[in-house]
Amino acid sequence: MVLNTNRVEHLGGNERNIAIYNSTGSEDSEAMSPPSSVMVVTSSSPRQVHQVVLPPFRTTLQKLRLRLSEIFFPDAPLDRFKNQSWGNRFFLGLQFFFPIFVWAPNYNLKLLQSDVVSGLTIASLAIPQGISYAKLANLPPIVGLYSSFVPPLIYSVLGSSRHLAVGPVSIASLVMGTMLNDRVSYTDQPSLYLQLAFTATFFAGVFQAALGLLRLGFVIDFLSKATLVGFMAGAAIIVSLQQLKGLLGIVHFTNKMQIVPVLTSVFQRTDEWSWQTIVMGASFLIFLLTARKVSMRNKKLFWVSAAAPLTSVILSTLIVFIFKSKLHMISIIGHLPKGLNPPSANMLHFDSSYLGLVVNTGIVTGILSLTEGIAVGRTFASLKNYQVDGNQEMMAIGFMNMAGSCSSCYVTTGSFSRSAVNYNAGAQTTVSNIIMSATVLITLLFLMPLFHYTPNVILGAIIITAVIGLIDYEAALRLWKVDKLDFLTCLCSFFGVLFISVPLGLGIAVGVSVFKILLHVTRPNTAALGNIPGTHIYQNIHRYKEARRIPSFLIVAIEAPMYFANTTYVQERLLRWIREEEEWITTNDESTLKCVILDMTAVTAIDTSGIDTICEIKKVLEKRSLQFVLANPAGNVMEKMHNSGALESFGLNGLYLSVSEAVDDISATWKCQP
Amino acid sequence: MVLNTNRVEHLGGNERNIAIYNSTGSEDSEAMSPPSSVMVVTSSSPRQVHQVVLPPFRTTLQKLRLRLSEIFFPDAPLDRFKNQSWGNRFFLGLQFFFPIFVWAPNYNLKLLQSDVVSGLTIASLAIPQGISYAKLANLPPIVGLYSSFVPPLIYSVLGSSRHLAVGPVSIASLVMGTMLNDRVSYTDQPSLYLQLAFTATFFAGVFQAALGLLRLGFVIDFLSKATLVGFMAGAAIIVSLQQLKGLLGIVHFTNKMQIVPVLTSVFQRTDEWSWQTIVMGASFLIFLLTARKVSMRNKKLFWVSAAAPLTSVILSTLIVFIFKSKLHMISIIGHLPKGLNPPSANMLHFDSSYLGLVVNTGIVTGILSLTEGIAVGRTFASLKNYQVDGNQEMMAIGFMNMAGSCSSCYVTTGSFSRSAVNYNAGAQTTVSNIIMSATVLITLLFLMPLFHYTPNVILGAIIITAVIGLIDYEAALRLWKVDKLDFLTCLCSFFGVLFISVPLGLGIAVGVSVFKILLHVTRPNTAALGNIPGTHIYQNIHRYKEARRIPSFLIVAIEAPMYFANTTYVQERLLRWIREEEEWITTNDESTLKCVILDMTAVTAIDTSGIDTICEIKKVLEKRSLQFVLANPAGNVMEKMHNSGALESFGLNGLYLSVSEAVDDISATWKCQP
Repeated sequence: MVLNTNRVEHLGGNERNIAIYNSTGSEDSEAMSPPSSVMVVTSSSPRQVHQVVLPPFRTTLQKLRLRLSEIFFPDAPLDRFKNQSWGNRFFLGLQFFFPIFVWAPNYNLKLLQSDVVSGLTIASLAIPQGISYAKLANLPPIVGLYSSFVPPLIYSVLGSSRHLAVGPVSIASLVMGTMLNDRVSYTDQPSLYLQLAFTATFFAGVFQAALGLLRLGFVIDFLSKATLVGFMAGAAIIVSLQQLKGLLGIVHFTNKMQIVPVLTSVFQRTDEWSWQTIVMGASFLIFLLTARKVSMRNKKLFWVSAAAPLTSVILSTLIVFIFKSKLHMISIIGHLPKGLNPPSANMLHFDSSYLGLVVNTGIVTGILSLTEGIAVGRTFASLKNYQVDGNQEMMAIGFMNMAGSCSSCYVTTGSFSRSAVNYNAGAQTTVSNIIMSATVLITLLFLMPLFHYTPNVILGAIIITAVIGLIDYEAALRLWKVDKLDFLTCLCSFFGVLFISVPLGLGIAVGVSVFKILLHVTRPNTAALGNIPGTHIYQNIHRYKEARRIPSFLIVAIEAPMYFANTTYVQERLLRWIREEEEWITTNDESTLKCVILDMTAVTAIDTSGIDTICEIKKVLEKRSLQFVLANPAGNVMEKMHNSGALESFGLNGLYLSVSEAVDDISATWKCQP
Repeated sequence: MVLNTNRVEHLGGNERNIAIYNSTGSEDSEAMSPPSSVMVVTSSSPRQVHQVVLPPFRTTLQKLRLRLSEIFFPDAPLDRFKNQSWGNRFFLGLQFFFPIFVWAPNYNLKLLQSDVVSGLTIASLAIPQGISYAKLANLPPIVGLYSSFVPPLIYSVLGSSRHLAVGPVSIASLVMGTMLNDRVSYTDQPSLYLQLAFTATFFAGVFQAALGLLRLGFVIDFLSKATLVGFMAGAAIIVSLQQLKGLLGIVHFTNKMQIVPVLTSVFQRTDEWSWQTIVMGASFLIFLLTARKVSMRNKKLFWVSAAAPLTSVILSTLIVFIFKSKLHMISIIGHLPKGLNPPSANMLHFDSSYLGLVVNTGIVTGILSLTEGIAVGRTFASLKNYQVDGNQEMMAIGFMNMAGSCSSCYVTTGSFSRSAVNYNAGAQTTVSNIIMSATVLITLLFLMPLFHYTPNVILGAIIITAVIGLIDYEAALRLWKVDKLDFLTCLCSFFGVLFISVPLGLGIAVGVSVFKILLHVTRPNTAALGNIPGTHIYQNIHRYKEARRIPSFLIVAIEAPMYFANTTYVQERLLRWIREEEEWITTNDESTLKCVILDMTAVTAIDTSGIDTICEIKKVLEKRSLQFVLANPAGNVMEKMHNSGALESFGLNGLYLSVSEAVDDISATWKCQP
């Protein structure tokens, strides 16, 4: 068909543009009829529309490969190796597995200067926090220092984040402490408990490295932000309540973690409260919280909160040491062994009776520490505009934990608070982690006796100050404002953690998140569309007041893939749209409905049930003498309909590239065949 | 801004249409620039585009109500009561709860005639099948007849399908038999087993009615067609293998259902095989299968397969009766008590030790029988073009089972095979069920002694013939052709049922189906779009060869809601699109990339993580001096972005109603500010 079109355009007030063009034949040229407000019927021939085509043919194997590469290699990590010499490829590969080779060649004295300053700063924070978090995990305090020595060294070679400060963190410590202590009491069987902790760390590392190697990094995406906000707030409250033991000086305290037994324990043991401990704890807590506040007000004063914990430790240790005869009721850390991390590979405990426990603990703490480490790494990477590869980070953190488990370390990852201090102190590369390790090394070798008189109460105050920042009520408020179901997820994980248990609370929250996705698929939005006058655009008539119904047409958009889970709903809802439209036509005395157009733009996938439903709808509507056409079906939808033979029943006249073409073409047909 | 537009159109070969129109001011009028192949820049002002608006404001409560009504009342069941007098409303309500009032007023002799013929036909099938299926559930054969008497009567008053033939069915019988027998042996504790069967039936009824009352009918949608194809094939094979006990005359047979122990049992007991039984079973099996084949070839001969089971029963009973002295090794049904259903409400067994078992069994058989009943009802309703309301059917089937459990019936629903016969025999209303009940009543009262000598082997043959139709290998083949993941679901449920257990097999299949939905959300398709010359349409450049890239623009469509589960992927993938585009530009020496347009048409929902990601992408791209705009964001996406404050960073210049408007407007801006 040869279509010869001349068009003269006149636009604007004082301006005049004239364009005349010829286009010969074929569907590629001007084929769309003008805007409906002009209603110039283009020609007598009904088919000047563009054909909907199938996507390029691919074999099942090709499709599988494409699909798998999208699942596992969305970032196309091998792209960088293309068109490179073998030497270069080797070097790029080395850089890929050991990111240290990316920046080491250009490392200079100026960078070192920044890294030394930031490294020393985080060390001053890492030492007291390391001791405190180890206590949170019910481990000997020295393990917290061991864990601040080996893992940072390994991360500095393998990790791709330049600002991550590695070491023990509160959440993972808490979870490990709870899960292990549920089965094995740390007071009754301390050496078994320690063995299990190292073994769980080993499994956490194996699990993390496996996720990274198998490129399954996306599993941590299922912990949505809403889940994490609720979880962290709940965990922070639990951790803080646990510290009441130290802050009040209670000796006999529950081993449980939930809010009810802890509070019961606190108020049943008022006889054990010690006023000296309470006064000391409260003073230092106020000092630490004030320092935190100062740093939050002014980012340049970050060093105030960074130095406060070590200052508190030194001050409180001095006080206790000087008044040791009068303050004997304040419990102190006591003797800490001098020396480097002892090897612990022989302590890994693969006995079948505890295997389930350690594997479970390893997986849960592994996922949690990955989530924290990767989120922190990404946050600072985006501030400095570089990329952190999730799968690679998983491998780095995984290997670091595996190595840690053989050198008396428990689960470590990137800590949010210390990384923020690291960033603010001007860290440039992971050398700051090496500096921190070196500082811890010196502490381990020479300074351990100094901690003998450090009171436990100060550790509680440090922990509370660290975790209080995890309660992000503003984020929760924003969730409520933006998305009520997200807020519900947040509440579920919050209360789940507070009242049930950490893994179960997380499980419930993930369940609610997944349920939300399924709900959206099960009950997709549908909308009747109308034309925006003067354009080819069709929009929801309930949202755009100017959108006008097209007489005799009902245009419905389905806003979700068509799956088994929603086909019944889609069919019922579409029939209801038609019923309502017919009622509207009767009351408004409009021209009768003749054609239903299904806008498939947002139907991004379909399964066999969906295809059956479309065929079913077509059959039902044809029995009622209604034309039924599809607009803009997606590539894979077309392909599946073709494979199932459903396309044949639609033929050329049932598929259009856009709603606008469908409306124009079908109205033209009606005019030709009155 | 007042825009004065005159346009003169000249179109077509021999036809000439001229339209001149004025439009004053505002964005509602002609604002789209002409197709890009014409490239007439419309005016010097950059903003003649349509604004993206928020959906109409609704309070949280209104939104919740709307959402809940879509979830629970998608078919708007109360619409019919609108604008009606109170009398009419009462009658409509009566019709709603008792569909019998819909057709009863117009019932006439001609309809009755059809119903009597079809009722008698299905009775001749229902009696032997009832006895057989009861044996499948390890229940006394008489319970099968009881179950073919009371439930059909209740369904005929409450049910909305006119063609459903109600009674025991193979799948639910099999599942009940397996699940109960796992805990309580039917041979050792027959009366406890019977009590548990009635109690499970009661719970199935309660569960079904509750689903209907709470309008939670959509839960059965989660058993996708693919799951059911695999499940039914697996169940059919298991059922058939179980019949080997009867067909071979084996006395000592396993109680397990899985394929391995059953086959082991068969070949370990070759000494118990009885050639008389085998000969008789094989002959009648061949007879029944031939009759089935005949009816399938010619739909008009449906009565051949409908009459065959009763014929076989009569013939085989006669043979055994006549040669009873010689055929004593063929096991027979034996004595069946005469008389109506005895009440069984006192047999319901709510003891806590078996409560879990009966509730579980009730839920699983309840879901399975609902799925079968509703699917069958819908199939025949769509053939005769009437509606079957899923929730109402659930209530009908639920009440029928609750009543059944108090009158010595076990789980019943609409049977596919008998409903097909019912439909083919010309059933017009549920009166055919009443006729069938009456026939069963007569049988129960007077004909029971006739079944004394009926051999068990014939029941096995009847069951095999009935279930063999459930193996739908053509559907499985179609699944493979259309959707590989659907086929995987099918295989999972098939092998799960065959090798593990019925509930676990179903659970795995549902899990795979849900995983498929999640996979689509986790790894959504993305596509680069190009303009189809001469139109305002933008399409995937890899699918439409004629689609042309727009210089300096990268237009990417995301084809899924943006959730926590995919935000990382979307961000990585978008950055990769940009990287690839920039590489392409470098190699092809094209004009540099200046603007990225995200087509949000298919992003039908967003959560807080999604919003954060969009803001994050905008920030990253702006650092690289790339403009980033959104095209056609959906209503609820706009709303959430507005609530979270993310919209402000986009402002008026960052949102467009369509890709085409975005391209035209942004190019116009560039021309103004070179």
